[in-house]
Amino acid sequence: MLTLILAEAELERIPQEIHSHPAVISNAKQRQRKPSKILLDASFHHSAMRKKLSEWRRRGRPDITHIFLLVTLDSIANKKGEVKIIVHTRNNEAIYIHPETRLIRHYPRFIGLMEQLFEKKSIETEDKILLKLEEDKKIEDIVEEINVDRIIGFSTKGRRINLLEYFQSLREDGYKDIACIVGGFPSGDYHCNLGKIADDVISIYDDMLSAWTIASEITVNYENIFLCSQ
Amino acid sequence: MLTLILAEAELERIPQEIHSHPAVISNAKQRQRKPSKILLDASFHHSAMRKKLSEWRRRGRPDITHIFLLVTLDSIANKKGEVKIIVHTRNNEAIYIHPETRLIRHYPRFIGLMEQLFEKKSIETEDKILLKLEEDKKIEDIVEEINVDRIIGFSTKGRRINLLEYFQSLREDGYKDIACIVGGFPSGDYHCNLGKIADDVISIYDDMLSAWTIASEITVNYENIFLCSQ
Repeated sequence: MLTLILAEAELERIPQEIHSHPAVISNAKQRQRKPSKILLDASFHHSAMRKKLSEWRRRGRPDITHIFLLVTLDSIANKKGEVKIIVHTRNNEAIYIHPETRLIRHYPRFIGLMEQLFEKKSIETEDKILLKLEEDKKIEDIVEEINVDRIIGFSTKGRRINLLEYFQSLREDGYKDIACIVGGFPSGDYHCNLGKIADDVISIYDDMLSAWTIASEITVNYENIFLCSQ
Repeated sequence: MLTLILAEAELERIPQEIHSHPAVISNAKQRQRKPSKILLDASFHHSAMRKKLSEWRRRGRPDITHIFLLVTLDSIANKKGEVKIIVHTRNNEAIYIHPETRLIRHYPRFIGLMEQLFEKKSIETEDKILLKLEEDKKIEDIVEEINVDRIIGFSTKGRRINLLEYFQSLREDGYKDIACIVGGFPSGDYHCNLGKIADDVISIYDDMLSAWTIASEITVNYENIFLCSQ
């Protein structure tokens, strides 16, 4: 089993500090929704974020979570029932994604879905919970509750490896259930101490990569090594 | 070199047949743009498409092209300068993508960019052409102008293979420059005769896959086999 954790994803509702900014008020009016119920989105709230929000350069990026989820949910490894996906947010919420979720492809409607999730804490169909949000979950807490053999953190500061060979050596060492932690922010570094949380911190390229590029590398190579009977 | 062709992508402007539908008129008013200059999007124009458009179930899906481009442009193979990307549309336009394009992540702004491309035929910076649209280009024409050793079509109807091993055997047979054709539509089959255009038609899974899942499998395994010095 492969557990994918998108860590410190820049997914949050518009914070109090910028509720009274004209750009936020105008967006709220257009959306016919209170600012406190709207997802922060750098593309719409840039001028307000820039003025009053700490770490504004990296915040308000639900698009990263969206594409990460589309890539991982649609992966062959997930279709084979071998993937568990959890999104951890900057405010220490954990979002558990049911592997059979057919995620909305259309970004504006994905935003609406996430807003509903933040409000109701879960999105359900008749017979299953597709998305569930739990508060007060640090990455450490999430890692503790999943039961895996090996926790691997992905970071440009990690030890440079070739991922196919790395998974091969994990397999040879008898590891089967592995968790991979991937940063859900556009730039900068993890806030958490990744070296303490993960058994190993690795890097697969000499430069920053998108969260979904790392996700592709992980899922495809996981299939190649751990699910390789065609 | 790896050439990726997204074929018969469902990317087009709102067709004449539905310009007078209330949903289209209302969307055009909101966007302050003529219907003929707006990209067809099933999420916004569904009710109009359903009534009057042939093949309405598969049309109006710019989101597929968007995510395909994000996945391929951000891939390690492309960062290493080893990928060429071309989008072929249902109306036989070819869109040539400069490998260094930093594509807009935000879907509504991507739509704006594509509308600009359909209007101006190219998107340029000071020193390079990022996107270029050419008309009257069938897949056959595109395949003819690129100079590759081997053209591979991806289809559920193809011969079932393991992609890592398949690329390995291509490499052993001395192939270096390969082109991969991936369908840019959400369901159904190619309109073109893929078996005539490609040297080989293959399938990598027993069920339909998203265009970006196939793109992940291709780019990651291409790196594994053809660019494997870490």
